[in-house]
Amino acid sequence: MEIRTIGYARTQWQRRQDAPHQPRAAPEVVGEILIEPAYREALADLESFQRIWVIFLFHQSTGFAARVKPPRGGPKRGVLATRAPNRPSQIGLSCVEVNAVNIEAGIVRAAGLDLLDGTPILDLKPYLPEADSFPQAGHGWLDSFRDAGIEPRLKKPYRPPSSG
Amino acid sequence: MEIRTIGYARTQWQRRQDAPHQPRAAPEVVGEILIEPAYREALADLESFQRIWVIFLFHQSTGFAARVKPPRGGPKRGVLATRAPNRPSQIGLSCVEVNAVNIEAGIVRAAGLDLLDGTPILDLKPYLPEADSFPQAGHGWLDSFRDAGIEPRLKKPYRPPSSG
Repeated sequence: MEIRTIGYARTQWQRRQDAPHQPRAAPEVVGEILIEPAYREALADLESFQRIWVIFLFHQSTGFAARVKPPRGGPKRGVLATRAPNRPSQIGLSCVEVNAVNIEAGIVRAAGLDLLDGTPILDLKPYLPEADSFPQAGHGWLDSFRDAGIEPRLKKPYRPPSSG
Repeated sequence: MEIRTIGYARTQWQRRQDAPHQPRAAPEVVGEILIEPAYREALADLESFQRIWVIFLFHQSTGFAARVKPPRGGPKRGVLATRAPNRPSQIGLSCVEVNAVNIEAGIVRAAGLDLLDGTPILDLKPYLPEADSFPQAGHGWLDSFRDAGIEPRLKKPYRPPSSG
């Protein structure tokens, strides 16, 4: 299995409870992805995209649990029907907005980077609306919670002021 | 690094050149994901979603290349600015439509499953339009090719008749 850490996130979130649950919870916060020298050339052309996928490791996950309690409440759900970190493969997926890519320095500046500081990055991919955007797909079991206006309950998260 | 193969794809595509380049190239073709017994309970609630992400291994990738020739032509592009298989981490990402989930048997039937038969599956996640849908994001360097009506050039792919 060819899986490599190509870099690390540099963000303002130090603790699990601080990190936003999705990029849209902190769309204005800018963070950086530092790419290792061996993979910097592969960043060419990435800056032409408005958005990219960040595929990362939930490195502070506490291990696999078949069912997990969602932050909006209600019964436990199959972990594969959530975006929670306690997955069989501790892989996370976030869509962020590209601000700038410095190929030589190996730095991708991105808005909405909802990762803990030091998160290992496995892959970056261009976001392609043709393949990735399905606005009408619905939110499954989450719809009833969303319709009721129930937001995720978080443990006193730290939200730094927006930075540019 | 906790990365596990949770199952395998069962599709009609045997050769690399046959597989569609994205689910939308074969949206009508139904395939199956077979989940290992240890992870079947984690499939609970997944069927409530219209769409899911499939995170998989490009197991027939020939290895990392910093720049690759895109199937629509033009100059080589940084591989991280493409969805090509020759990535540092050979991880693929496809959004497919859920037809049915059989938790006991560990079978997810999905339309638009653009994977080679036998592809190792690393993770399934619900598709959440709120976090994942950005119809206006643009297609980066691909836009000029798309505007010119240039389609990916494929090597005589095999396209089976649609099945249900």
